[in-house]
Amino acid sequence: MRENPVIAVDAMGGDFGPSVVVPGAINAARLHDLHVLLVGDTSKVETELNKLKLDNVRYDIVHAEEVVHMNEKPSDILRRKKNASIQVACRLVREGAADGVVSAGHSGATVACGMFIMGRLPGVERPALSAIMPTEKDPVVVLDAGANVDCRPYHLFQFGLMGDAFARDLLGYASPRMGLLSIGEEEGKGNSQVKEAYELLKMAHNLNFIGNAEGRDIFTGNVDVVICDGFVGNVTVKTSEGLAMSLVRMLKKVFTSGPLPALGALLAKGAFKRFVRTIDYAEYGGAPLLGLKGLAIVCHGRSNATAMTNAIKMGGTFVRKGTNGRLAETILANEELTRFSRSV
Amino acid sequence: MRENPVIAVDAMGGDFGPSVVVPGAINAARLHDLHVLLVGDTSKVETELNKLKLDNVRYDIVHAEEVVHMNEKPSDILRRKKNASIQVACRLVREGAADGVVSAGHSGATVACGMFIMGRLPGVERPALSAIMPTEKDPVVVLDAGANVDCRPYHLFQFGLMGDAFARDLLGYASPRMGLLSIGEEEGKGNSQVKEAYELLKMAHNLNFIGNAEGRDIFTGNVDVVICDGFVGNVTVKTSEGLAMSLVRMLKKVFTSGPLPALGALLAKGAFKRFVRTIDYAEYGGAPLLGLKGLAIVCHGRSNATAMTNAIKMGGTFVRKGTNGRLAETILANEELTRFSRSV
Repeated sequence: MRENPVIAVDAMGGDFGPSVVVPGAINAARLHDLHVLLVGDTSKVETELNKLKLDNVRYDIVHAEEVVHMNEKPSDILRRKKNASIQVACRLVREGAADGVVSAGHSGATVACGMFIMGRLPGVERPALSAIMPTEKDPVVVLDAGANVDCRPYHLFQFGLMGDAFARDLLGYASPRMGLLSIGEEEGKGNSQVKEAYELLKMAHNLNFIGNAEGRDIFTGNVDVVICDGFVGNVTVKTSEGLAMSLVRMLKKVFTSGPLPALGALLAKGAFKRFVRTIDYAEYGGAPLLGLKGLAIVCHGRSNATAMTNAIKMGGTFVRKGTNGRLAETILANEELTRFSRSV
Repeated sequence: MRENPVIAVDAMGGDFGPSVVVPGAINAARLHDLHVLLVGDTSKVETELNKLKLDNVRYDIVHAEEVVHMNEKPSDILRRKKNASIQVACRLVREGAADGVVSAGHSGATVACGMFIMGRLPGVERPALSAIMPTEKDPVVVLDAGANVDCRPYHLFQFGLMGDAFARDLLGYASPRMGLLSIGEEEGKGNSQVKEAYELLKMAHNLNFIGNAEGRDIFTGNVDVVICDGFVGNVTVKTSEGLAMSLVRMLKKVFTSGPLPALGALLAKGAFKRFVRTIDYAEYGGAPLLGLKGLAIVCHGRSNATAMTNAIKMGGTFVRKGTNGRLAETILANEELTRFSRSV
């Protein structure tokens, strides 16, 4: 827990770089009473700062020489680009100068640097990327959304523990309903990995495990946390995003298919905009990588300034609530179960 | 290839049973010049037949005593319910009295009876359920959609071969663009299963393999066949269906949120209905289980008569085109690659 969170922001990350990240960060610092460290090319960051009002905003620039390209391998970035903004930002957390990192850059690099530079909380086997998605009711958290592609049952189990802590603190759910993503509702449905994870989740301390969840349950809003391995989670999140975008495009086509629908669309324009905003993933800012000694939040490459502000705000809340403390506690409380599953 | 296909229809299957299946089947027989065998409780089937015009329709009733319940295990149904309509229907195919089976009943039972009663085509390791889904352009086939939850790389490889044959014959694609579902576009992205399958698909004869496809690519219409294991496929298909339904519900809410949007909705009603029909999975009828000595088509439990008609029509086309011949050929042409992968 820290009263005055310091968030290191990868100023060079994302499709639009400092021009979007810097105003988003400054806005977050002002609106949510945070201290932001803008990590990147000093002159480029200053160019953007010069366009903004900076009174009463707590910020510093931390210079970083190198830039990461999207086609580089995370392991190469980690080994060879010691002065890339994402590496410098993660080192700030390790050294205690910041509490967390937010980046819209190369997501694989953010995950790798978070894991290997910050390190894992005691007892955590694999940090998990947690995607927050809109539903018909309240948002749902899906984890792991892509940090771990080959998982064992006890990894899924720990994703459940971490997802629970996150949903309580960050989404304010008193007792998050947790579902294990599978291909049938009944116990015993699923692949071998899921069947074993089911047993563990059932035995966990203080989890509101409601059993298997199917793909069709994710968006009804009847489950708060959905557990899966990083391969399944990444496919699920990207499929959902892609489908939502395709449907919006198809809908726009339908509404321009003739004069009557076009007039209808005009009348419903405001409502339609609200609909698109509801399903816009950018509203949630980014996906936190849970289980680190610190915090890394992965944002969409195409994040706008509002998405950056929201992600940084989430980082601040995470620190103020002391979510890592809660997370470490629940991991510890279930340590024996994890160890038992590892040994079989 | 058979000029006059005979399709055995599970008259008792689905949420609505004979009241929907029988008219759907009779319609398919009339419209698509097929012979249908209505398998189920004779008196219940006759009750429905009495409501219909039957001149010039080729049909027969095949009596089946038992009914399958949705909570029964497929293996139990297979062992204990020898006179269930789905078992009787599959035996008709094995005995040569029918070419394929269509059922909206217990999908696990249909898959199990198809596999174990009809048996697999020579060389086929695992039959695969093939879901046909609408996209922004032409439909996409996703397989396996749930028949095999724990897969090896050569299973995925064969799913590709079978999906290719299906997409050529049934969807009319001259050279189906095939994508391997993964978590990044670049070669080398994915879990260990996918990475190995990638190598096999790259080396296959006569496949238009375009590399990895991400979840977000499924609905753009830029890939024709998507390959994945049955766990991932089932989650993907159900997530997509669920999200589409949720979005339609959210949209309806938005359009009734005030007088202007409501008026807009009224004007765009026809266009909106067309949109909903475009994304309605029932339009494609059902998901064929490919790789059998024969054919089984799995329909949604909530299928209406039109969906049943469409699924039975697909069965007829499958038989007339001799798709199983093409499928067996491509499996045979790639036999060495499969065997090599099995041995490592």
